[in-house]
Amino acid sequence: MRVHDLPTPALIIDANVMASNLAIMADTLPGPRLRPHVKAHKMTALASQQVEQGHRGFTCATPAEVLGLAEASLGDDILLANETVDAQRLSAMARCKGNVTVAVDSPETIAAAASCGIEQVVIDVAVGLARCGVEPADAGRLAELASASHLTVRGVMGYEGHLVALPDEHERREKVAESMELLLAAHRDVGGDLISAGGTGTYAVNTAATEIQAGSYVLMDSAYGGLTDLPFAQALFVDATVISVAKKWAVADAGLKALAMDHGDSHTESGSTWFFSDEHLTYGPNKPTNVGDRIRIVPAHIDPTIAKHPYASLVDGDEVVEQWPIDLRYW
Amino acid sequence: MRVHDLPTPALIIDANVMASNLAIMADTLPGPRLRPHVKAHKMTALASQQVEQGHRGFTCATPAEVLGLAEASLGDDILLANETVDAQRLSAMARCKGNVTVAVDSPETIAAAASCGIEQVVIDVAVGLARCGVEPADAGRLAELASASHLTVRGVMGYEGHLVALPDEHERREKVAESMELLLAAHRDVGGDLISAGGTGTYAVNTAATEIQAGSYVLMDSAYGGLTDLPFAQALFVDATVISVAKKWAVADAGLKALAMDHGDSHTESGSTWFFSDEHLTYGPNKPTNVGDRIRIVPAHIDPTIAKHPYASLVDGDEVVEQWPIDLRYW
Repeated sequence: MRVHDLPTPALIIDANVMASNLAIMADTLPGPRLRPHVKAHKMTALASQQVEQGHRGFTCATPAEVLGLAEASLGDDILLANETVDAQRLSAMARCKGNVTVAVDSPETIAAAASCGIEQVVIDVAVGLARCGVEPADAGRLAELASASHLTVRGVMGYEGHLVALPDEHERREKVAESMELLLAAHRDVGGDLISAGGTGTYAVNTAATEIQAGSYVLMDSAYGGLTDLPFAQALFVDATVISVAKKWAVADAGLKALAMDHGDSHTESGSTWFFSDEHLTYGPNKPTNVGDRIRIVPAHIDPTIAKHPYASLVDGDEVVEQWPIDLRYW
Repeated sequence: MRVHDLPTPALIIDANVMASNLAIMADTLPGPRLRPHVKAHKMTALASQQVEQGHRGFTCATPAEVLGLAEASLGDDILLANETVDAQRLSAMARCKGNVTVAVDSPETIAAAASCGIEQVVIDVAVGLARCGVEPADAGRLAELASASHLTVRGVMGYEGHLVALPDEHERREKVAESMELLLAAHRDVGGDLISAGGTGTYAVNTAATEIQAGSYVLMDSAYGGLTDLPFAQALFVDATVISVAKKWAVADAGLKALAMDHGDSHTESGSTWFFSDEHLTYGPNKPTNVGDRIRIVPAHIDPTIAKHPYASLVDGDEVVEQWPIDLRYW
């Protein structure tokens, strides 16, 4: 099938760029130095490519991602890098055939994990982002509580999400080092093999973590594309068809249900974005444009964009070489 | 099942509020005076409630919505109020058992519809929103082209989407009247029974259209909730579980993959929204909060929020009375 024959809006992966991104990362952070985060791409088919690159552990944001990877026999070591007290989901993860570890940051999450049969945890530590994670000074106490609850404490994790998009590499490196001091302090009290942290923006500057939880690097978005020191290229697009042409604008058939807007507007090389509505992009074309023309859009934020689509089409130039279901969606 | 037992994030419909919204609208715009837009809710189960209220026509934004309604034998008269040149989708709509009409606004969309076996069209007219629609002065010429292409021209449509959210009712009414002058002028040249227009914000002030294409009224969102003259109440929510509590903030498990952000942040009565990330809401609670507590979130924009979920749970107080698949998603 030709790319032009795909129904639109179409989620597109440039297969060659993706392969290059995978290889660059595996070269820099080989094998267990990278624990790829699947929340960005949510595809077992792509996770399988990461296994082929030598990464045998995975990071997940939802139980659905953990269970989907385990079901597909992907990964020797699956980490839910997020908190849950959902007994049904914790029990399902405890029963599944994957080697599962979950993050805990409170007595409640420890009690829920222990009572549902989870065996391994990491202590999630607050390292500066206002989200989950226990204060570093309390991490040791929490690890003791987990051990007393018959949970194996594998170490610590902490996500420096407030720093991953800092444009200046030097400033990013310095602030990440400060942030990781908090994680290392917690680790001194907690112990264990794992010091898990990092993302695509900090994979090269976070030297404190034993493993990096990057995910966006494989496909990229325009938010991370703004970091000029990153060697990864844009591999993810949404193709749309021009369905209406007026004197001053054109309308393409990809809107808010095909592209996430939380990082601002997505952009296209075919013109200037005016606005998105539910099923439309109104834009100012920069060349003569006809109904039926295709345009290619670069998503502003990869994670919630991919989660809107049922499948992605891998393309090599004008050829569609494969289609992958987005099979790790929902919760 | 109790609401508290639903896994989160959970898309929630207050069944009683929904029933009240349905009844209020059917009272104001009975039967064919309303052509409910399904793009907001994307559920055949909810469309079926609208049929029970006496509305036998539907408005759709995508071929998938048209085909899904037809497959479910819902609606005697299904309008794709959007342009497409996708031959496969046009042919599928031409073959389906529904009575289908599609919008056209160019020679290309007319040619595509005619060549794929579509029999009925409306001329989509630009009435002030920078999106689809032919200039009013060109509508007659386009109708002639459609007739010459053996298409039945049923009339005109035009969406005053730039006016539906104007806060002042008086100003909204005046500007809608001006906008509808454009549609009525086009209709004088086009002819036909249909003058289709309007949305939830203008359903009561658009007196020019023969039928109103409102959709959000059934479930509502905080954007439309800002129009104090509307009699519809909020029926749609996303419930989330508190998974982490820090000194100054709490974290709930509903983020950018559960709530659309294009109309700004969603809000909760449980506190002040700090920020959303992929799977989290960080907020400042306004009362003592514990891990495991539930919070209820009001979506800012209903359409792309619902499209993120596989199903909705209808609730009556604390009881889950039914679950409806969001079965009209995608394109």
